[in-house]
Amino acid sequence: MKAIVIDIDGTLTDMQRRLDLRAAAAIRELTVPVILASGNVLGFVKCAAKLIGTSDIMIAENGGVVSMGFDGPVHVSGDKARCQEVLEILKKHFDLEELDSAERRSEVALRRNFDIDAARQVLVDGNIRDIELVDTGFAVHIKTVDVNKGTALVMIAEMMGLNTGDFVAIGDSANDIEMIRTAGLGVAVGNAHPALKDAADLVTTGQYGAGVVEALKSA
Amino acid sequence: MKAIVIDIDGTLTDMQRRLDLRAAAAIRELTVPVILASGNVLGFVKCAAKLIGTSDIMIAENGGVVSMGFDGPVHVSGDKARCQEVLEILKKHFDLEELDSAERRSEVALRRNFDIDAARQVLVDGNIRDIELVDTGFAVHIKTVDVNKGTALVMIAEMMGLNTGDFVAIGDSANDIEMIRTAGLGVAVGNAHPALKDAADLVTTGQYGAGVVEALKSA
Repeated sequence: MKAIVIDIDGTLTDMQRRLDLRAAAAIRELTVPVILASGNVLGFVKCAAKLIGTSDIMIAENGGVVSMGFDGPVHVSGDKARCQEVLEILKKHFDLEELDSAERRSEVALRRNFDIDAARQVLVDGNIRDIELVDTGFAVHIKTVDVNKGTALVMIAEMMGLNTGDFVAIGDSANDIEMIRTAGLGVAVGNAHPALKDAADLVTTGQYGAGVVEALKSA
Repeated sequence: MKAIVIDIDGTLTDMQRRLDLRAAAAIRELTVPVILASGNVLGFVKCAAKLIGTSDIMIAENGGVVSMGFDGPVHVSGDKARCQEVLEILKKHFDLEELDSAERRSEVALRRNFDIDAARQVLVDGNIRDIELVDTGFAVHIKTVDVNKGTALVMIAEMMGLNTGDFVAIGDSANDIEMIRTAGLGVAVGNAHPALKDAADLVTTGQYGAGVVEALKSA
């Protein structure tokens, strides 16, 4: 394997978003580049990359934002305006609280305090097929279906002169499914969503950061 | 001591901004609140507080931004518009690159690639006394002289129902001087700027995070 792409929240962190220090230490021992891939905004991912000491190539906003360098160019895909249209539709049914709206460039994120299945039914009833709701366990994202961490991994692999098959991908959540399917080796940590475990080549015994340490030893 | 306030860059991190994992582990062992105080923007400080697991009370932008809670109210002091006026004056003499300008609310930060002493002389020659240039080793900040991490510590102590004397403050850089003077016990890590060491009650033998671990054992 020539590179590793790792989700942050729930994979490198616990549910309180505290970094697993053993996983951070294990990452620093690696000689291959490690790319962070998060649903969070780019500012958060940049900070995590600096503090952990990973690559300056980063995936944010579930693949909608790809950054090449800490001060480098940023590629934005997705369609935030369309996500905001759907937000207005959902607001007629639910009391929704937007997160990081000023910083978020490609999608909309919401606090996880409403009935997500009921909201998905509103999209079905309205015949809205270009938008999906993704629940990461930390936030609910309104995003266009054409963008995900897997499409971002394709972009990054090309920029790095690698094949997607050269990557190990590690995650915990439903928003990591396309990424671990796209990578050569897809790993779900022990605490992962059942759908991610189904899609994975390898499911670790260890949960959260302990699962990352285990995966890095196996890969 | 009832609370601890710690600088991030160069104190909890090395010069590449990689978090010292032993210092993070030592912080997690504490039972008193730990407040992060940085020259960086609030988004960075929030991320660091989440990943390390410190208090949701935070000081950003050298004291110009104080946040009470991860989603809580933010108090902005300083005068960014005035800092931008001085930036325009300095731009006539130097080729300057602004950092995080969209996110920065109370001051201006610049890449450290110009003659800072010569820039300070421009302020003296222009009789500009309300603005100072602070070099943290990571960036140069154009800030109003009335705001610093010490004034922010006064504000935070009051909000927490504590006295400033109840705090241990730990830092490495010239922008930490007022904070370590304001706290009950002011600590400079071994790699600190000579002016901070002069102002400190305690200078650690250890550098960077090793100095933090040493300070936390002593306090």
